[in-house]
Amino acid sequence: MISYKDMKKHFYDLLIKYGLNEEKSLICARTFAQNSLDGVYTHGVNRFPRFLQNIKDGHIIINNEPVLTGGFGAVEQWNGQSGPGILNAIFCTDRATNIAEQNGIGCVAISHTNHWMRGGTYGWKAARKGFAFICWTNTIANMPSWGAKDSRLGNNPLIIAIPFKDEAIVLDMAMSQFSYGKMELKKMQGEELPVPGGFDENGELTTDPEKILQTNRSLPIGYWKGSGLALLLDILATILSGGLSTHEISLQKSEINVSQVFIAINISKLHNSSAIAQALDQIIEDYKNAEPDKSFGTVRYPGEGVVKTRIENLEKGIPVAKQIWDEIISL
Amino acid sequence: MISYKDMKKHFYDLLIKYGLNEEKSLICARTFAQNSLDGVYTHGVNRFPRFLQNIKDGHIIINNEPVLTGGFGAVEQWNGQSGPGILNAIFCTDRATNIAEQNGIGCVAISHTNHWMRGGTYGWKAARKGFAFICWTNTIANMPSWGAKDSRLGNNPLIIAIPFKDEAIVLDMAMSQFSYGKMELKKMQGEELPVPGGFDENGELTTDPEKILQTNRSLPIGYWKGSGLALLLDILATILSGGLSTHEISLQKSEINVSQVFIAINISKLHNSSAIAQALDQIIEDYKNAEPDKSFGTVRYPGEGVVKTRIENLEKGIPVAKQIWDEIISL
Repeated sequence: MISYKDMKKHFYDLLIKYGLNEEKSLICARTFAQNSLDGVYTHGVNRFPRFLQNIKDGHIIINNEPVLTGGFGAVEQWNGQSGPGILNAIFCTDRATNIAEQNGIGCVAISHTNHWMRGGTYGWKAARKGFAFICWTNTIANMPSWGAKDSRLGNNPLIIAIPFKDEAIVLDMAMSQFSYGKMELKKMQGEELPVPGGFDENGELTTDPEKILQTNRSLPIGYWKGSGLALLLDILATILSGGLSTHEISLQKSEINVSQVFIAINISKLHNSSAIAQALDQIIEDYKNAEPDKSFGTVRYPGEGVVKTRIENLEKGIPVAKQIWDEIISL
Repeated sequence: MISYKDMKKHFYDLLIKYGLNEEKSLICARTFAQNSLDGVYTHGVNRFPRFLQNIKDGHIIINNEPVLTGGFGAVEQWNGQSGPGILNAIFCTDRATNIAEQNGIGCVAISHTNHWMRGGTYGWKAARKGFAFICWTNTIANMPSWGAKDSRLGNNPLIIAIPFKDEAIVLDMAMSQFSYGKMELKKMQGEELPVPGGFDENGELTTDPEKILQTNRSLPIGYWKGSGLALLLDILATILSGGLSTHEISLQKSEINVSQVFIAINISKLHNSSAIAQALDQIIEDYKNAEPDKSFGTVRYPGEGVVKTRIENLEKGIPVAKQIWDEIISL
């Protein structure tokens, strides 16, 4: 267990050591620590060493900042110039909400940026500022389309966020049923997946993570549907940003120069803005009033678990595998 | 087999008989016939009798048109006043593209509208005009959330469309793995579903459509993921339009007064607009170069099959069940 404060401090010191300026170090350290605090360890503490490695490798150019390349009206296009993905994504989130402030809706697309870690970060940020928010990223090819054996699609995480009470409702989902990280973990734990997550060597759907890791044939959510959605998200990210598609990212071998889209909507200026909180309460109340299947505890909305984890981790500290923390200490 | 021309003429005559004016009859007749031509019979010819019935029942008020209720900048809010869903949705599609023409992006939300039939209609329309386009609708509750036994979510179809060559790439997907219509059809044909589509009476996933129709527990795409996406689409449609949520629609018993959102993006003004066609060609070429699973024919992109069906149905006529055509003739 590491406290949020200690984790953030440790990340900050390392980022300073790796050459980021104070402001950028603070934002990146806070984001990595917050992702961990929220329970998204895979895109928090567990991925921090790889972030530093990507700086060393020159995949992330720490001092580069986005430059405006085009746009029209409430749409802006930026080039991320291989800067840190977290900083670029926060920049785009703020641009999108600033444009929406003036224009009702703002759309910011960025090319040549790096992995944003946890997409939910930007959904929580925009929703806390009072905006409805949608963003997504493309990725390197890591998922076969429906009907195909080899991976040509990215799992292209999609985030939708809405302000809710003092917090937010935040959907943060990749288009694959399970990430490879999750399947690796399940394999290590000797557990089956709760639902089929991909194909075995005979082309049959399986819940055995080991078999899927052997074939590299993960499953899109909803079979043909998630496959189609992943393709369209890649197309939109590529076209709107003028950047690289999953196909082109994959030719680079490393997951760099990805394309992202951020859309913010200014709900405070709607004719029904004063009734939004009540409408939301009603939707969530009905949603949670559903009769739960006996094999489930309760029905939860996207982001509900995050708030619980955050409170728990803030109190008790953030659980970190000793091996990972030792690695971080040694960097 | 009925020719597209004859079908459209027949629909037109009936709509005139039911009191729609010439222009509105023409647009509705064409839309129902085009949906059928494109192979979406469930939201074309097969649903036409129900459309007329809804007029008789007073659920659709034929002369009502949308009125502006609010908005800010490039966001507009309209009340559909229970007018024909097709006409309201076409109106919103045109408003969204018109706003995007001026502002880069346009967002139009409509409350109190009726079923838009096939959501893809509006995606094809906007993409053919050169816009990137996203739209969705909420519905009556027809799907349990993940972990719940009773239906509190709508299957809330989502459409994403992009101009492609002389046609478009159009994703048109509901959040349920299969519609109840599809499951009814499979049951009648005595066939299993290709993948699990819901739960049996023991709460186990099943491919037997009859068992799912008994429990009314259909499955969201990707389990918890499609469940979350359906919830967020309902929330956005409700908040942005200031209209009814799936919960409130369901209290009415009939699927009326639904809420919809239409977002158009003007890609012709982007800095990379001249390179978009080439980028798309490259993405689709790579996508289709995937090694197909031997149990599949070829890997197809969303909308690809529609164009083939359209050409075939235009040549050979539109296949219609005798029973349905006889019913239409008798109306």
